[in-house]
Amino acid sequence: MRDGAQIHDANDRLAPLRSLFDLPPDKVYLDGISLGAMPRVACAAVQQVMLQQWAGDLIASWNKHDWIDLPRIVGEQIAPLVGAASGQVLCADTISVNLFKLLASALELRPGRSVILLAENDFPTDGYIAQGLAHMLGNDRCQLRRVPATKLEEALDGDTAVLLLSEVNYRSGERYSMRELTRAAHEAGALAIWNLAHSAGAMPVYLDACKADFAVGCGSKFFNGGPGAPGFLYVAERHQNVVQPLSGWFGHRHPFSFEERYRAGEGVQRFQAWTPPILSMAAMHAALRVFDGVNLDTLRSKSLALTDAFLDGLQSSGIAAEFRCLTPRDHTRRGSQVSLAHEQGWGISQALIERGVIVDFRAPDIVRFGFAPLYNRFADVATALSTLQSVLDERAYEDARYAACPAVT
Amino acid sequence: MRDGAQIHDANDRLAPLRSLFDLPPDKVYLDGISLGAMPRVACAAVQQVMLQQWAGDLIASWNKHDWIDLPRIVGEQIAPLVGAASGQVLCADTISVNLFKLLASALELRPGRSVILLAENDFPTDGYIAQGLAHMLGNDRCQLRRVPATKLEEALDGDTAVLLLSEVNYRSGERYSMRELTRAAHEAGALAIWNLAHSAGAMPVYLDACKADFAVGCGSKFFNGGPGAPGFLYVAERHQNVVQPLSGWFGHRHPFSFEERYRAGEGVQRFQAWTPPILSMAAMHAALRVFDGVNLDTLRSKSLALTDAFLDGLQSSGIAAEFRCLTPRDHTRRGSQVSLAHEQGWGISQALIERGVIVDFRAPDIVRFGFAPLYNRFADVATALSTLQSVLDERAYEDARYAACPAVT
Repeated sequence: MRDGAQIHDANDRLAPLRSLFDLPPDKVYLDGISLGAMPRVACAAVQQVMLQQWAGDLIASWNKHDWIDLPRIVGEQIAPLVGAASGQVLCADTISVNLFKLLASALELRPGRSVILLAENDFPTDGYIAQGLAHMLGNDRCQLRRVPATKLEEALDGDTAVLLLSEVNYRSGERYSMRELTRAAHEAGALAIWNLAHSAGAMPVYLDACKADFAVGCGSKFFNGGPGAPGFLYVAERHQNVVQPLSGWFGHRHPFSFEERYRAGEGVQRFQAWTPPILSMAAMHAALRVFDGVNLDTLRSKSLALTDAFLDGLQSSGIAAEFRCLTPRDHTRRGSQVSLAHEQGWGISQALIERGVIVDFRAPDIVRFGFAPLYNRFADVATALSTLQSVLDERAYEDARYAACPAVT
Repeated sequence: MRDGAQIHDANDRLAPLRSLFDLPPDKVYLDGISLGAMPRVACAAVQQVMLQQWAGDLIASWNKHDWIDLPRIVGEQIAPLVGAASGQVLCADTISVNLFKLLASALELRPGRSVILLAENDFPTDGYIAQGLAHMLGNDRCQLRRVPATKLEEALDGDTAVLLLSEVNYRSGERYSMRELTRAAHEAGALAIWNLAHSAGAMPVYLDACKADFAVGCGSKFFNGGPGAPGFLYVAERHQNVVQPLSGWFGHRHPFSFEERYRAGEGVQRFQAWTPPILSMAAMHAALRVFDGVNLDTLRSKSLALTDAFLDGLQSSGIAAEFRCLTPRDHTRRGSQVSLAHEQGWGISQALIERGVIVDFRAPDIVRFGFAPLYNRFADVATALSTLQSVLDERAYEDARYAACPAVT
């Protein structure tokens, strides 16, 4: 296994990218699906923004250093990474807030339809935001329908205003067909909003080609924009005339005209609510430069090769039998993680972390191994497998310290 | 004037605080009402968070370095600065997004009342957000009524759900009585939301004592939290049972239980929507430490002494006659800025900036001189006056470069 890993790493065209990240030398970091590692350039950029721009040029920086345009500029960096032509992506606010804007917009575009269709076991906060909207608008204007992901197509009907789905499920790592489900939504007269939190940055995403209507995504995972990095949103050009409800001044056509009446900005700008958080945005802007020149198909191939190697290793070592593997073997249905369910999942995840393999746990019983193809190595796969083997052999998960799984991990 | 300034500075107990800021030595910075200067400690803190926490401890930092609690921790730092007892302030999201949450909450708490009462010429984005809400809910559930600030009391009636007002107006620098207007709102059966953007951090604010219901504020101005710093919100304890509509996972009682159903968190936590932007939040957290040990009455006295000195200088030099001064002389009605209207306001502001006195311009004709009592000196007042005098004497504002006032400044 370890020899094979060495050969794979030696042949990996993306291997040199790892040196762009500041990673602890003594750990194997497999949690880029939650918090991406720090690109060195992000740290330098934030330092420069603070010392030279904020402290030095002060208020003039809004124009001199283009702070005011960062949501659009960073949006344009993201656009090719999610298959979007120019003018449709904005980096702003947060994923939940962006989702609220887009769900409200979708309902506005589909008068007479009230249903937001969601998949069971999708990331809960998407549903929470939909619940907040439904509470606000009342059930006649907005209600949730939740079905298993396999039943989404048949659940689409004349009441469905919008289908909301993660391209890759956070729990299972299963990837859904953006193309087929968007087509099905459109055939039912509904719109489709895609959550790209667990796909963008690890694989090509084809928003335009799949005719997606809207999308939201996260800067902190595979984009490595930092903890709590700004979110992003995509609005297909054909829908950019809708006025979203979080109509703050940075979405105004002329924010600095200080008019009394809100006049929505041109294009995707109107989906911005407020002043961008410049420090976090500067980190995101710099972090995305790591993708310059990276071929997304190569990235996807490496991601699949990493998860294949891990799945193969689980199988050949016999570890697989100890777990329920939630992640599909089928390449077209797999994201960039492997999720293993085990009733001792909490203890196993903690024992792995103590031994330097940083994974995460998702209640009630899932250990997630996330593979970030920009910086993870085949050697990391080998270490993860051997460490997991030792944790199981030694029943290290039975340690009394892991007896209680806290509500917040 | 300059001798007097020297004496004032020598006697200023707060003068040593200036050394905590990284300010350009060759400028007089009078735009802390838009972007506060950088506390040196903020730069060091962000650097540490990036290198040691993000890069070093990675995902473990959410617990190990209390990232998860930062909204509450920073909220508790802000609480005493705005006269709020513990458990009522949260640093999260942005001012507009927070306002949306609170306006929706206020309407929910006042069923049967639909009017949001606003002052003409208040900060436009507050009205934009109210418009977005009204558009979403429909006019029978939400409508705006806008009257001159002097007519607010008489406009309060049985239809008014909530009065929304800035404690200090961004254009004029006029301060309104939180105590009297909140009382009037309550007598009419309405609630009061205060926008503290131009007051908090420059003077004591008395949210609890004035029985304010809700408040929002901004981290980037007198709190010196950095460009696009996170906003904050205040929810009086008696109103914390309402469920706000931006119900993202960080407002959930147990975000990491990943339940399908939203269950609002305890207390003010439920007003948080999403993961906090840690880098921007770290700057804010550090910047607020500058207030440790600062007596807010002393701060207010200095702020008033600075604006008094500027107003007196305008008068004694005869400059005052050239402008329409929008800022009240009455101490109780004054914020921490002096706003001067002039038909050549744009050119005057640009000429001042070129000569190193950093002010700002607010359309259509207002030059704002903001005084940040933590770092501005009486010497700054003297320089601002003499530079303004020279700009006027030389008619420097007539320079062709200032002919067109851009829509975005």
